[in-house]
Amino acid sequence: PEEQHVLEHQHCRHNPLRDEWVLVSAHRVRRPWRGQLEQPPTEDVPRWDPANPLCPGATRANGEVNPHYEGTFVFPNDFPALQPDSPAPGDSDHPLFQAAAARGVCKVMCFHPWSDLTLPLMSLAEIRAVIDAWAELAAELGASYPWVQIFENKGEMMGCSNPHPHCQVWASSFLPNEARLEERTQRQYRERHSVPMLLEYAEQEARRKERLVVENEDWLVVVPYWATWPFQTLLLPRRHVLRLQDLRDSERDSLASIMQRLLIKYDNLFQVSFPYSMGWHGAPTGPHLQEDCRHWQLHAHYYPPLLRSATVRKFMVGYEMLAQAQRDLTPEQAAERLRSLPEVHYKQRRR
Amino acid sequence: PEEQHVLEHQHCRHNPLRDEWVLVSAHRVRRPWRGQLEQPPTEDVPRWDPANPLCPGATRANGEVNPHYEGTFVFPNDFPALQPDSPAPGDSDHPLFQAAAARGVCKVMCFHPWSDLTLPLMSLAEIRAVIDAWAELAAELGASYPWVQIFENKGEMMGCSNPHPHCQVWASSFLPNEARLEERTQRQYRERHSVPMLLEYAEQEARRKERLVVENEDWLVVVPYWATWPFQTLLLPRRHVLRLQDLRDSERDSLASIMQRLLIKYDNLFQVSFPYSMGWHGAPTGPHLQEDCRHWQLHAHYYPPLLRSATVRKFMVGYEMLAQAQRDLTPEQAAERLRSLPEVHYKQRRR
Ligand SMILES: O=P(O)(O)O[C@H]1O[C@H](CO)[C@@H](O)[C@H](O)[C@H]1O
Ligand SMILES: O=P(O)(O)O[C@H]1O[C@H](CO)[C@@H](O)[C@H](O)[C@H]1O
Repeated sequence: PEEQHVLEHQHCRHNPLRDEWVLVSAHRVRRPWRGQLEQPPTEDVPRWDPANPLCPGATRANGEVNPHYEGTFVFPNDFPALQPDSPAPGDSDHPLFQAAAARGVCKVMCFHPWSDLTLPLMSLAEIRAVIDAWAELAAELGASYPWVQIFENKGEMMGCSNPHPHCQVWASSFLPNEARLEERTQRQYRERHSVPMLLEYAEQEARRKERLVVENEDWLVVVPYWATWPFQTLLLPRRHVLRLQDLRDSERDSLASIMQRLLIKYDNLFQVSFPYSMGWHGAPTGPHLQEDCRHWQLHAHYYPPLLRSATVRKFMVGYEMLAQAQRDLTPEQAAERLRSLPEVHYKQRRR
Repeated sequence: PEEQHVLEHQHCRHNPLRDEWVLVSAHRVRRPWRGQLEQPPTEDVPRWDPANPLCPGATRANGEVNPHYEGTFVFPNDFPALQPDSPAPGDSDHPLFQAAAARGVCKVMCFHPWSDLTLPLMSLAEIRAVIDAWAELAAELGASYPWVQIFENKGEMMGCSNPHPHCQVWASSFLPNEARLEERTQRQYRERHSVPMLLEYAEQEARRKERLVVENEDWLVVVPYWATWPFQTLLLPRRHVLRLQDLRDSERDSLASIMQRLLIKYDNLFQVSFPYSMGWHGAPTGPHLQEDCRHWQLHAHYYPPLLRSATVRKFMVGYEMLAQAQRDLTPEQAAERLRSLPEVHYKQRRR
């Protein structure tokens, strides 16, 4: 269609969640790459390594010994960026020098006792256990903290310093930047259009289909219209849900299923354990539990860096840092590629 | 002092230019690093390589042959993200699906005919020639385009695909995100305080001194109070200057000098050619040349990724992408380290 033709020329797209723009220059993916190549991930991770502080029975930096856990396992981060009792900075003497108190806790959650597994290779029941543990921590820390950030850095390329399947949970006494941004844009959208932004967005994408990657009765995954990373996705419930802890039993099962399908496609894209940072955003907690948060909709962002192969990533540098994010293929092209990939993991095909 | 003691505990600091916060957790630099190590840069770059499209006399992707240039050399990017004649997208049918036209030009500027040089190893006269070429391009493209982004990606870690010393210049028909943000925050600051934000900031830092890295009669370099990257700096004029092209002759000389001093310190920090992305921000151009832009102040941002050594970088991933930037040493500590480094390049010390 003509519309499609025009969108394959460079243009900007608006990200309504962050109120910013991305430059889409689809023709640029043709340029040759002579720059840095990434190391593919180590393939021979031992299933159990007593020297790895994330393994069952191993000794951690603080001298504690891990239990011989068999499912998920949560423990305090030994080098926390947030601690519960840090003193507040004094009053500012100038508007350009503003500091504020920051308190919180940082936890680590192992997904599984084995170091040589990743989420896409885990069973549905095992992924479901991770979801339950997320919801539990979100509720527990959210009882007092305004924001509980659950996130997974997967792969060395994403600063992950331990191959053992795990995520982190940082709860803070303040709303971080991204939370403040999404709070403002979602509030304004609901004020203007009387419907939560991301509920409306999911309905639109379910109908338009061109950016859909996978869907089931409760969830859908799209490459958002405003994606900046080449294969970035957004995981959305179809129902209006404020927080992880509000998910029903059946929605947790269907979430395990759609996560598995998405992550298998990701691994199949370049036949490599696909690196990414992902995390959950939902309505704020702590004192905000008492407030009207109906403009919020629970969602997960997946930000994967790879562009062309297991070793060629997208660099968000120069122009991106100083001016504006720029992408080299359209979100529709990325969605098409992901959609057409098999839902059986490339490592499991011969079984 | 007590103030200092408190600031070495975790806290948040406000970035008034981007109206966002950074989490400072100074104690975290003590944690051991077992994650990805970076490749140090290639040391044996040939001075002249006819297969390198940036070299004098080499043939570029489009078949053109470079002149045997002897100073700076500007040519069109062969894989431009912005082109002058791209069609505008059609009208949007929904507020969540907004596209806008994007037109522009992308140029590449070689700093020097030799591939084995970098700015810190160039002479003052050679750096001054780069500054003049920047000012010329900024004026030329700024005659019609609202924003001219000059930026340098240095080092493979920063997505730089060619070791030849060069930068890029992307001019666009729109104000990119970072420009829009700085436009808004600087305008508001001047409305409230009757002085340009960054002019006031430079005066404050010149007096406070604890974040100063280098200074001379016209310029100063600080690790800004709100720095996110470990050794991020901000280069500021002392005088109120809107745009690069407004710099006086003597200010261009003193700029060459302060850039050289900063970049030598950067290379000396980990005894490696220091990777970074840098770029210039000044008042918008094109149609904005007619407007009141007195809230703007010319400045350059340096965003270097290294944290602990030539091979250990800061990863801006998980928490940073999904919640808020976090740093592992205070800006004052970073400034102190840079300040105390020699101003003779480690490669030139024996001469
Ligand atoms: O044009 P280059 O130098 O090949 O490309 C580099 O800089 C661009 C502008 O910051 C980025 O979009 C690319 O990801 C990066 O690799
Ligand atoms: O705590 P980790 O996994 O060692 O550290 C990783 O994740 C953190 C949170 O995103 C980042 O601040 C670090 O830069 C990164 O290396």
